[in-house]
Amino acid sequence: MAKKYRWAFFMNLDKFFNPHSIAVVGASAQKEKVGFSLVYNLLQGRQREIYPVNNSQSEVLGLKCYPSILEIKNKIDLAVIAVRAENVVSALDECGKKKVPAVIIISAGFKESGEKGASLEKEIQRVAQEYEMAVLGPNCLGIVDARADLNVSFAVEKPLPGGISFLSQSGAIGTAMFDWARQAGVGLAKFISLGNETMLTEIDFLDYLADDSDTKAVLVYLEKVSNGQKFMELAKKLSAKKPIVILKAGRSRKGLAAAMSHTGSLAPEDAVFTAACRQSGAIVVESLRQLFNLAKLFQLGIIKPRRRLAVLTNGGGPSVIAADLIELSRSLELIELHDETKQALQRVLPPMAAVNNPVDVVGDAPPSRYEEAFKILTAEKEIDAILAILTPQMMTDIETIARLFVYYSKKKPVIPLLMGGEAVTKGLAVLKEGGLVNFDFPGDVVEALDVLGGEQIKRVAESSPKKPPTSLTMQDFNETKFLLRKYGVELVGVFIEEKEKIGAVLKNISGPSFALKVVSPEVIHKTDFNAVRLNLSTAEEISRAWEEIRENIRVRIPNAKIQGMILQPMLKGKEIIIGMKQDPVFGPVLVFGLGGIFAEVLQDVAMRVAPVGEKEIQSLIEEIRGFPLLAGRRGEKPINFEKLVQLISAISHLALEHPEIKEIDLNPVFATENDIAVVDARLMRA
Amino acid sequence: MAKKYRWAFFMNLDKFFNPHSIAVVGASAQKEKVGFSLVYNLLQGRQREIYPVNNSQSEVLGLKCYPSILEIKNKIDLAVIAVRAENVVSALDECGKKKVPAVIIISAGFKESGEKGASLEKEIQRVAQEYEMAVLGPNCLGIVDARADLNVSFAVEKPLPGGISFLSQSGAIGTAMFDWARQAGVGLAKFISLGNETMLTEIDFLDYLADDSDTKAVLVYLEKVSNGQKFMELAKKLSAKKPIVILKAGRSRKGLAAAMSHTGSLAPEDAVFTAACRQSGAIVVESLRQLFNLAKLFQLGIIKPRRRLAVLTNGGGPSVIAADLIELSRSLELIELHDETKQALQRVLPPMAAVNNPVDVVGDAPPSRYEEAFKILTAEKEIDAILAILTPQMMTDIETIARLFVYYSKKKPVIPLLMGGEAVTKGLAVLKEGGLVNFDFPGDVVEALDVLGGEQIKRVAESSPKKPPTSLTMQDFNETKFLLRKYGVELVGVFIEEKEKIGAVLKNISGPSFALKVVSPEVIHKTDFNAVRLNLSTAEEISRAWEEIRENIRVRIPNAKIQGMILQPMLKGKEIIIGMKQDPVFGPVLVFGLGGIFAEVLQDVAMRVAPVGEKEIQSLIEEIRGFPLLAGRRGEKPINFEKLVQLISAISHLALEHPEIKEIDLNPVFATENDIAVVDARLMRA
Repeated sequence: MAKKYRWAFFMNLDKFFNPHSIAVVGASAQKEKVGFSLVYNLLQGRQREIYPVNNSQSEVLGLKCYPSILEIKNKIDLAVIAVRAENVVSALDECGKKKVPAVIIISAGFKESGEKGASLEKEIQRVAQEYEMAVLGPNCLGIVDARADLNVSFAVEKPLPGGISFLSQSGAIGTAMFDWARQAGVGLAKFISLGNETMLTEIDFLDYLADDSDTKAVLVYLEKVSNGQKFMELAKKLSAKKPIVILKAGRSRKGLAAAMSHTGSLAPEDAVFTAACRQSGAIVVESLRQLFNLAKLFQLGIIKPRRRLAVLTNGGGPSVIAADLIELSRSLELIELHDETKQALQRVLPPMAAVNNPVDVVGDAPPSRYEEAFKILTAEKEIDAILAILTPQMMTDIETIARLFVYYSKKKPVIPLLMGGEAVTKGLAVLKEGGLVNFDFPGDVVEALDVLGGEQIKRVAESSPKKPPTSLTMQDFNETKFLLRKYGVELVGVFIEEKEKIGAVLKNISGPSFALKVVSPEVIHKTDFNAVRLNLSTAEEISRAWEEIRENIRVRIPNAKIQGMILQPMLKGKEIIIGMKQDPVFGPVLVFGLGGIFAEVLQDVAMRVAPVGEKEIQSLIEEIRGFPLLAGRRGEKPINFEKLVQLISAISHLALEHPEIKEIDLNPVFATENDIAVVDARLMRA
Repeated sequence: MAKKYRWAFFMNLDKFFNPHSIAVVGASAQKEKVGFSLVYNLLQGRQREIYPVNNSQSEVLGLKCYPSILEIKNKIDLAVIAVRAENVVSALDECGKKKVPAVIIISAGFKESGEKGASLEKEIQRVAQEYEMAVLGPNCLGIVDARADLNVSFAVEKPLPGGISFLSQSGAIGTAMFDWARQAGVGLAKFISLGNETMLTEIDFLDYLADDSDTKAVLVYLEKVSNGQKFMELAKKLSAKKPIVILKAGRSRKGLAAAMSHTGSLAPEDAVFTAACRQSGAIVVESLRQLFNLAKLFQLGIIKPRRRLAVLTNGGGPSVIAADLIELSRSLELIELHDETKQALQRVLPPMAAVNNPVDVVGDAPPSRYEEAFKILTAEKEIDAILAILTPQMMTDIETIARLFVYYSKKKPVIPLLMGGEAVTKGLAVLKEGGLVNFDFPGDVVEALDVLGGEQIKRVAESSPKKPPTSLTMQDFNETKFLLRKYGVELVGVFIEEKEKIGAVLKNISGPSFALKVVSPEVIHKTDFNAVRLNLSTAEEISRAWEEIRENIRVRIPNAKIQGMILQPMLKGKEIIIGMKQDPVFGPVLVFGLGGIFAEVLQDVAMRVAPVGEKEIQSLIEEIRGFPLLAGRRGEKPINFEKLVQLISAISHLALEHPEIKEIDLNPVFATENDIAVVDARLMRA
């Protein structure tokens, strides 16, 4: 199953979107049945060969009904199955015999409904593999290609044709988005409801959409990821060509549990998923509203960041709110207008108008005032987009002004914000006719532009109570040291097996003072057991500390096995931590942060999925809030970033080449302007 | 002007909302004029005596038109003026002569339009004071009382009557909200457009609305605050009785500038304003959408926090999204259903249904399945509210299910979320008829409930480049010391005027080691000038350090006047900072945070407006992100919070009793489990 995405290379997914002939298995003449809607929706589209199949009916919507797909003489490109769950396997088997290359199974009642359904679903898999059919579903809504005027789904209404494709692991989210998009005037290219993903998964369709010229932008609703690394690879491929926006459910503990039980699949941790998407250039959104508002931007033709904004308004309050939100955004800018531009505006606008950005043409503005301002602002090269606000005041000629929005949007992106309800209805109709969409509130526009234009939102991993890693065995210190050395990472500490060797060791290690720590599988949090001694200078002091530590542990854990102790020179510098953990979906994940309270109290850490290049590591380091401490403040010198990048890169390589190591924890690491010194390291394996 | 709110005590604001007779000065028979809309809108409401006044017309909308208000024989309770700006003062003067107690000036063209307008506005003030009239405006939209069926505005449509009052400093925001509310089915009580606030301000109406029994909740859009302390007092009074939600524009630097130039008033800094609102129990929102979504909750009768939620849905995806958002919220909880409840649900729902919270009645759910689930969930005492999601699937009987939403909302708050566009239109009509409102997206519901139920969002003050306080003179160290001592705050350092006195001073100050710092008006950032020496033990060492510091400064600032040096014992403990600054609107604002990088890099500070009680100080301390460091981690003892509270309280008193002190900066302060030691303090006065 892990390699099911490979189907994409064998099967022609194109048959889902460009079929000449379609069989509807389970077609029905009864209006309330899915089998009726499927035939009905197909007939509403472009003319194609449609073959209803149902052995208990003779005619469906004026078309001859076949008792079995095998009775149809012509070639069938695509079959849609909407029979009861227990009859799906035999229907699919007949599709195989008929050599149908692509099949959509709409029927529900499989793994989502319990054990019996799950075993039926395994049968689907077997039959699909036997005949090498590309199978979508079961338990899905179907497929829609608005540009090809094809609706192979039981969704009620045809969407408007456009450039946005939507991939959904939830049928309900699909229908809702469908309906919203139609109402708001957002045009769709392809819509794919993925259902249970028994055979074809999100991976296959991402691959397809990356090369689909009709698709200008991709929206994805995800509850699970079939293959983390492959997902990233395709997201990278896609995002290099067009924006891909992902809403992932299961961001919280309970949501994750719900998504996992819902899909029966392993779901990645949210922080890992976000880091992975970010690395791949995908845009991660946090709510349906954000997803939808990005779709609106795409509809307006804004598929690349537009950061330098002008605001045009007929109301003071809304423009102050918009200015606030733009200024408080992470990536957007309310541009400063040139003096000449201001003067030009002054010449054509009344004295009460504001000619700074926001440009306020004032409450009683007739269309001509908007037009004059539009002329000047659309000619200004430095403006990336115009946020055009209209509030319905008494004299406002909303329809004519909306027509100006449409006209000037051909010169420069205009983002319409008609603020109101019934009063602006006619204006909304004008916008829709002109291919524009309206935003409801200033915050929606700014948030969507900021998500598109900004760095992805940094989120902190949810803290989870740390369990002692009982199922893991701790690596021996020297083994750790040698393994790290293979990757060019030198531990500054020395492992000493017996107290008697202290003198000899001291000759090979330099430092004005030392720390001594016990090594014992029973003692994990060393400070909790008083098993660390600091500021030791002479061999005598070290010996005495050794005895004290041994005694401390003996009293509290009589059976503890003391393997030896680690002697480390005491270092100064900024304390940082570098970690790695194997994620079940994405593989090795690197974690970076400042040590001590920064990691513990403030949870100021950032993540990347390995492998990581130099630039990626740099962005990882810069992402933490405490970054200014490393960069140097008040004339302080920055730490040695070059060596830090090397170190993180080394851990990335180590993790990839040693999948048996489940966790790495370099802690503490001291960073100075000269060096990055790894004082202690823990490696855990399964 | 500062005490203009006192008008509220002299004038009967009630005349604005319960007038028996209304004169419209500037009434017009021409449809496109404001003076027409005003008369027209008044006639649409409950029957009242309406007197059009206009010396160039004889009849308006079938009513006799008077050449002057003085010609009207009957008593006039309320006059509305909508004449040209230059004629407003004489119209107002006639109102005074006619003894009209309350006047609304709709006309624009005053201080918002330049100097000439500003001087006209001063005339308005003079006349209003002369006749002791309560005057609203100018440059406003008017007043609407939906429950009294009174529309003294030129807003187009009548709002639905309801329990929410809305106070707005922007007319444009007012019209937009008006229109949205009507379309969404949100009912209003009183709407007041404040305009230029020449006489009556937001303060007066907050006072009025606090005691208004028709008003169940108050929404406010603010660009400025007339009187910070009074505002807080009224917000407190209001929030004790009903929720008050505030959207303040001017949160960013540019937004603040826009708001200030827009209103010509002093606007408080955003962080200060937020702290002040929070202390007063007001809810601060950050966008129009939040403001509007809270209005929706109020319309649903949810005016107190409802934190323990159940989700009822017919779609898996939306419920996972809702579960996520609830779990990630600050204050909400997706409650765990009792086993008996789950069993009861299991008995009535099909096997595919999910009976954990979220309760998923599955895509093909008929109304009966929603009904069974509603019966069980509304009977569950621990559930505060039910988020009821409906996605338009093929078989969904949206109207009947919407009727169930309405029916069961009488037993327990039901928050409807019909997800979609045209497909759910009929359901929306059912909800509206039943007095319910629909939310657009799961995130809207969760965000609104979270704002209502949670602590106010903590925001970090925007960092602004610090200017050296050139216009301030630094207080003398001893003067500072004596002033602080008056309030029970002891500085641990000693000021030494001449090097020769070091020996004598050392006898009275204890500590194994000391720090020495210069005192010079020319040296502000002492460390930048190498003007601090640490770890000094003996009198000799201190003398040598004195010489070195003097030499350092002499080289770099030859004219610097060295007043002396401060000798401080070197202390251990957690470094904290306590500050105060005088805000032009709210008065003294206390600032608290952890010292060093916490304040500088992470901007982890919290604020309160003085005076503050003990509880308020405690919440101030707990608000910073680094609080766990003070509370003690890993068995560490907490710092002495009692003494910390005392210290902050002392600074609060000092600030209130010494308004001439503009800034106080206690930094550093060392906190240990025993003591809170103030090492150094700077007091600035204007």
